[in-house]
Amino acid sequence: MSKLPIYLDYAAATPIDERVRDTMEPYLSDKFYNPSATYLVAKSISKDLNEARANIARCLGVRSSEIIFTAGGTEANNLAIQGIMHIFPDANMIVSAIEHESVLSPASQFKSKAAPVDKQGIIDVQSLEKLINDHTVLVSVMYANNEVGSIQPISKIAQVIDDVRKKRRKTGNSLPIYLHTDACQAANYLDLHTARLGVDLMTLNGGKIYGPKQSGVLFIKSGTRISPLIFGGGQERGLRSGTENVAASIGFSLALNIAQENRYDEGKRMQALQQYFLEQLENKLPTVIVNGSLKKRLPNNVHITISETDNERLLIRLDEAGILAAAGSACSASSEEPSHVLRAMGVNDKAAQASLRFSMGRYTSKADIDKAVFNLVGIIESETNLGVNNV
Amino acid sequence: MSKLPIYLDYAAATPIDERVRDTMEPYLSDKFYNPSATYLVAKSISKDLNEARANIARCLGVRSSEIIFTAGGTEANNLAIQGIMHIFPDANMIVSAIEHESVLSPASQFKSKAAPVDKQGIIDVQSLEKLINDHTVLVSVMYANNEVGSIQPISKIAQVIDDVRKKRRKTGNSLPIYLHTDACQAANYLDLHTARLGVDLMTLNGGKIYGPKQSGVLFIKSGTRISPLIFGGGQERGLRSGTENVAASIGFSLALNIAQENRYDEGKRMQALQQYFLEQLENKLPTVIVNGSLKKRLPNNVHITISETDNERLLIRLDEAGILAAAGSACSASSEEPSHVLRAMGVNDKAAQASLRFSMGRYTSKADIDKAVFNLVGIIESETNLGVNNV
Repeated sequence: MSKLPIYLDYAAATPIDERVRDTMEPYLSDKFYNPSATYLVAKSISKDLNEARANIARCLGVRSSEIIFTAGGTEANNLAIQGIMHIFPDANMIVSAIEHESVLSPASQFKSKAAPVDKQGIIDVQSLEKLINDHTVLVSVMYANNEVGSIQPISKIAQVIDDVRKKRRKTGNSLPIYLHTDACQAANYLDLHTARLGVDLMTLNGGKIYGPKQSGVLFIKSGTRISPLIFGGGQERGLRSGTENVAASIGFSLALNIAQENRYDEGKRMQALQQYFLEQLENKLPTVIVNGSLKKRLPNNVHITISETDNERLLIRLDEAGILAAAGSACSASSEEPSHVLRAMGVNDKAAQASLRFSMGRYTSKADIDKAVFNLVGIIESETNLGVNNV
Repeated sequence: MSKLPIYLDYAAATPIDERVRDTMEPYLSDKFYNPSATYLVAKSISKDLNEARANIARCLGVRSSEIIFTAGGTEANNLAIQGIMHIFPDANMIVSAIEHESVLSPASQFKSKAAPVDKQGIIDVQSLEKLINDHTVLVSVMYANNEVGSIQPISKIAQVIDDVRKKRRKTGNSLPIYLHTDACQAANYLDLHTARLGVDLMTLNGGKIYGPKQSGVLFIKSGTRISPLIFGGGQERGLRSGTENVAASIGFSLALNIAQENRYDEGKRMQALQQYFLEQLENKLPTVIVNGSLKKRLPNNVHITISETDNERLLIRLDEAGILAAAGSACSASSEEPSHVLRAMGVNDKAAQASLRFSMGRYTSKADIDKAVFNLVGIIESETNLGVNNV
């Protein structure tokens, strides 16, 4: 068996694509000028930055002026939520119960309610609809969940919100209502065309699409009322001050381009691997429970519960065997609390603590899955003392 | 004359030191793992990140736990100001009139007053003292000014604040009072030992010390009451969420190390170049006025007014001649307003618009100064039609 670890935690971090790193290189050396400076070599860097912005805009089917560069997905989610809620301090917002902490935590600073999800980890649109009242200004629902991979019905939610808008126009309620989606996990496999989705704000994260870490984007539909989170020199149309991270932004742009160009083929490949992974597990560990929707699911996500096991212990033994996986989101890996996502899906705490997330990616092969399953089965069998060593 | 431009805008951006880029390299390729993940290869990256943190702490004479990584100086300034003012919404804060926009702009979101500076661009400590009242929770004064290079009497201000603390203890006023300094421009040349300076919070920026752009640090003295700006997964002790930018943080750490190790020698070298630059200007353009203190000044800064000229036009002509300089801060380069720094120093708007900033750095040579002065003199003479072509 190869000494190189088998990486099955692409949802936590993706390696930078070599093409992306190469395109960043000049901006980490000769092209270091401050893009706000007046001389021509600086202006040409500012032009490069805006070309990257235009390229991202094209991927999303929006205008360049609607793309704000941030230092990653967490900041973009914070800008969306804090930026809107600061403008409307008396209004409320709604999130799904399975959002990432970078949505839940800023939302908790304001009047906010959580819409429930079903056992498959899909938001209950009717419940969401009922939570919307005359004072709701923002709804934030992730495009695809980072733990169980469930894909949320964003365009259906957009229709609900559009109906609310129509009703408000009739009743003379002038409060706007915006739909934000955290698309960090979706960008490798799903359509990001914002008009087709019907979203007003969308978060993207370079660190999840084979781009640089702490590169990110918030799409903000023209006309959206939003205030900055970080004040200063007025970069990014006043919405995000600070000397631009040109290298990271240009890297992000290429990474998004590659991800979106390949998303169909790569999605197909992942789907086949996912199915193979699930079949192997079903054959060799029949007690395994798969969490999350099987139909509405990111093709790279395999999230399972192996009852009567302890995921922390399993992860250590998998790590020893050269298999890198996760118990849930890396961001809350240090927390002792069971996953809020699984809890919202009705998974009890004991089962949650017997759950593992395998997330595949661009460099995952069928042989990797074979090795992962082989080792997982071996570990489970040695743990349960069945004495069966060869599977 | 060399075709390579002569770069005299180090205050706007510094090129990355090659050693810094090399140290970042592995974290932009193989060591891409999310430092919050549980497997050992990820934990070793987390360890590397914390070694970088410890190294920065050593440079500042503080504890590792007092160092928060941010995406640059602007974010660090915002975290300091918004983070404290959100905890004390009824309190007020004081800034100097010549702070960077990334201090002035967040301060303007709260109750804030500006302390005046003298004609040399040095804060009037007595006026500052008078502005402090029983409700003042934060004083933010930059260590060295980004436009005119004036160095502020931070430890003197720290004494004033310490006196306020003593008085408050006597009178039973339990409101804390903190001193923050934006040390972005100071870090290449000045002592950053926070205890000697007497500051509670300090901002540093990698993009100004030959480190990566959008890398930064906020030192927060243990016990300081401060809330996060960006909420989420709880990284950076809950004060700055988001998957860590390990490459940038490790690059920042080495950049700070190099800057602080060489600051004495490099400061001496800069001082000699600065003196030479000023002498040459005095000889060849006797009407030139030097702005800012000559004594309390960053050794790399030359800020002058050449009356009856227009700095925008001069910058274009200098650019054509291969000399890259600035009119003021790059951040406000796009703004039509005359510099608020020069205004605060009592420079009239006409003189402000006839002012240029040359900021030298690690790769500046005496020959560069000669060429810059030669070209500047040539341009001025052709502009004023004196018909003198050889100086």
